[in-house]
Amino acid sequence: MADKKQVEQITDMEVDFAKWYTDVCTKAELIDYSSIKGMFIYRPYGYAIWENIQRLMDAEFKKTGHENVYLPMLIPESLLQKEKDHVEGFAPECAWVTHGGSEKLEERYCIRPTSETLFCEHYKNIIHSHRDLPKLYNQWCSVLRWEKTSRPFLRHREFLWQEGHTMHATEAEAREETQRMLGVYADFMENVLAMPVVRGRKTEKEKFNGAEETYTVECMMHDRKALQAGTSHYFGDGFARAFDITFTGKDNQLHYPHQTSWGVSTRMIGGIIMTHGDNNGLVLPPCIAPIQAVVIPVAQHKPGVLDHAATLLARLQAAGIRARMDDSEQSMGWKAAEYEMKGVPLRVEIGPKDIEKDQCVIARRDSGEKVFVPLGQLEDKVRELLDAVHDGLYARAKRNLEENTYACASLEEVKEKMAQRGGFAKTMWCGDLECELRMKEEAGVSSRCIPFEQEHLGDTCAICGKPAKHMIYWGVAY
Amino acid sequence: MADKKQVEQITDMEVDFAKWYTDVCTKAELIDYSSIKGMFIYRPYGYAIWENIQRLMDAEFKKTGHENVYLPMLIPESLLQKEKDHVEGFAPECAWVTHGGSEKLEERYCIRPTSETLFCEHYKNIIHSHRDLPKLYNQWCSVLRWEKTSRPFLRHREFLWQEGHTMHATEAEAREETQRMLGVYADFMENVLAMPVVRGRKTEKEKFNGAEETYTVECMMHDRKALQAGTSHYFGDGFARAFDITFTGKDNQLHYPHQTSWGVSTRMIGGIIMTHGDNNGLVLPPCIAPIQAVVIPVAQHKPGVLDHAATLLARLQAAGIRARMDDSEQSMGWKAAEYEMKGVPLRVEIGPKDIEKDQCVIARRDSGEKVFVPLGQLEDKVRELLDAVHDGLYARAKRNLEENTYACASLEEVKEKMAQRGGFAKTMWCGDLECELRMKEEAGVSSRCIPFEQEHLGDTCAICGKPAKHMIYWGVAY
Repeated sequence: MADKKQVEQITDMEVDFAKWYTDVCTKAELIDYSSIKGMFIYRPYGYAIWENIQRLMDAEFKKTGHENVYLPMLIPESLLQKEKDHVEGFAPECAWVTHGGSEKLEERYCIRPTSETLFCEHYKNIIHSHRDLPKLYNQWCSVLRWEKTSRPFLRHREFLWQEGHTMHATEAEAREETQRMLGVYADFMENVLAMPVVRGRKTEKEKFNGAEETYTVECMMHDRKALQAGTSHYFGDGFARAFDITFTGKDNQLHYPHQTSWGVSTRMIGGIIMTHGDNNGLVLPPCIAPIQAVVIPVAQHKPGVLDHAATLLARLQAAGIRARMDDSEQSMGWKAAEYEMKGVPLRVEIGPKDIEKDQCVIARRDSGEKVFVPLGQLEDKVRELLDAVHDGLYARAKRNLEENTYACASLEEVKEKMAQRGGFAKTMWCGDLECELRMKEEAGVSSRCIPFEQEHLGDTCAICGKPAKHMIYWGVAY
Repeated sequence: MADKKQVEQITDMEVDFAKWYTDVCTKAELIDYSSIKGMFIYRPYGYAIWENIQRLMDAEFKKTGHENVYLPMLIPESLLQKEKDHVEGFAPECAWVTHGGSEKLEERYCIRPTSETLFCEHYKNIIHSHRDLPKLYNQWCSVLRWEKTSRPFLRHREFLWQEGHTMHATEAEAREETQRMLGVYADFMENVLAMPVVRGRKTEKEKFNGAEETYTVECMMHDRKALQAGTSHYFGDGFARAFDITFTGKDNQLHYPHQTSWGVSTRMIGGIIMTHGDNNGLVLPPCIAPIQAVVIPVAQHKPGVLDHAATLLARLQAAGIRARMDDSEQSMGWKAAEYEMKGVPLRVEIGPKDIEKDQCVIARRDSGEKVFVPLGQLEDKVRELLDAVHDGLYARAKRNLEENTYACASLEEVKEKMAQRGGFAKTMWCGDLECELRMKEEAGVSSRCIPFEQEHLGDTCAICGKPAKHMIYWGVAY
């Protein structure tokens, strides 16, 4: 760190939320731009957040019986075309490789926008009997989608993600897997990222290209826009038929297996920023913060201060807490601002007066609250405060979600309230695409999901007045 | 597992080493072929080996102060061309992206064959002062090189690797980093992969495109061919000048920083196979084996056997050993062959007679030796045996290396001995490219390295008879 830079001011989120967001992304040193539009550099601090997410989520995948694999990044055009709905959705945003070395390729290859087709090709080779099922595979990789617009973490041409791809002997098993993984995502968002979610099913219009059903976890950002944080898809046997993947069942007959896929990406980091951040910068949930506590010696030139600070650091690290010390020559004010910008959950300060009193001072990033902690209780108290920060962040985000989710009885009401306050409007819906399109056109909102937890708000569709089938959430999404 | 397949015979390595190798890769389920030539699928068992390598090596990188980042996979052609030697070396084997969606790109992009140019572009943005140095970055990713021939793990068009890229204020620091990371690699190969190495410097001809110096760790495979297992490069300030990266020094003057890069790849897995494998299949060094010990109940239908086996499994897992149980209906012979093929270091068997005697039987994969172990000593004995397997593998490989490294006084002698026995021929060398090319043409060998540990074998070059500058190793390489 040292004095290499001044901690700079960022735009207030109330003034310009979009500018505030990109300020945080760059000033907290999460990301940098490259010379290709829409392709970003994940800097060490941003990548360290992803590494923590990966480590914790990968453990959940393994607990639920999944194995990691790595498949090629290129897809021959003919392979991509095997499943009609799938190629229609993805072909327009593929980057195409046409030359290898100095030679023009006989067939062009796209860089994977997602890997269903590659997994199917492989599954055809390795699935023959019911004993080969289920196949529960996951892949950590980057994918490419040639989007027109871009924004750090939220929309990259290349982004990091994981994609689970599984094959099952029965529809019931595959459907159960689709739900199980949505549950893994929902629990992760809430318990690890402190982001409350709404769980539900996507409409026909919004589901994944080629899927029979898409399930989603939807979060509400601080500006009351929606972020689709993770999705889980049930494919039926559509791809299996297209790729001619069959297995011999216990009945000695040939069957098509049933398929799922599910994914989350570095988009979640955008969600963390927009859910928890404030006008001083990033605020990180403790479970994934690269630095959970930073130790700052006060009046460090005074005798004994650095030694005491070093002891605190060593104790925290020994207790398994991700801790750092900043004993650089920067001022206390600079350091406080720097670690606020970086969203470090706890700042542990110790100076000559604290040493006399056998204590340190711990400041919480979320609330700004400062507590005096007897040195004998350091580890326990830090653990307790990290939990408290998580709970505080979750509670605040939950309040935001609940206070800004409201029932509407008509398209007009959605339009009016959405313009005033954003958030999620819930209405009854007949299930027709026409009404969904009208809502988009007239109120500027997309359907977020048909929540699993249904409420009976009335008997008729808020848009057309025909009998209602579902309660649905609408919102403006990232 | 179950009875889904028969454990198949593989080709004897003495009959056809290349066929033996690909048999092991596919029959041990490490790899599968995709529909694109030279692009392979890392299957769960192969990828799990890579995950173990990554985890252990990443910890070493972090201990030595490095941070992980992720940079884009595409390089604009103009960026690649900034350093002349570099582009000359890589352009002929680049895969080129020419279209994004339906639009032709204004400039074509190559998929990274290596990322020096991307790192330099980023470094130019973030290095301004001596306080910004050193930058110690590493990236785990896949790279693409459009090679004509391919072979599992050894030569892929796309392969997984890590690439370290660092920038330093002084030449001395950068040179020290180059050596430090070669040391990290050498220790890793020997202590983790049980592969003894020769450390040295590459000749001008063999060094990395754009580097001032390339250092290497060279291993000898079971067939006595060489494998370059890892390299570390010192670039001087060549790229910094080409990319106009400067920093203000303590002297308030502008300077160019000094650069290094270093990498290892999934090629190491090919090295593991060819160093330790035998005619029964894979033999894995315990540190990176996905399964370190497999528990196999004997006569498992007899009362109490499965319970006892499950207890053994639980105890091993609780002791931090990567253990599995196979209580499938397969025969004991099938199971023994299966776990031999998969290279699992230890097979722990327990049956009714063992239970009576309060013992189990542990079979070592490397030597076939079986030992009776009192159940009370299970964890300690398994740890001891895992160490013994590692040491046994290392000793055998070291013997192979030493017995097949020999001094030669003339090109003729190299030619003759190399044809007879392969291995590493060491000779004195004048340092001239001509002699290196003659050696290649007439004896079919390439220079492996100029070892750090020099020996004085004579005063004159074995090829031309002029005064010698170095002792050098020659060999046939993968």
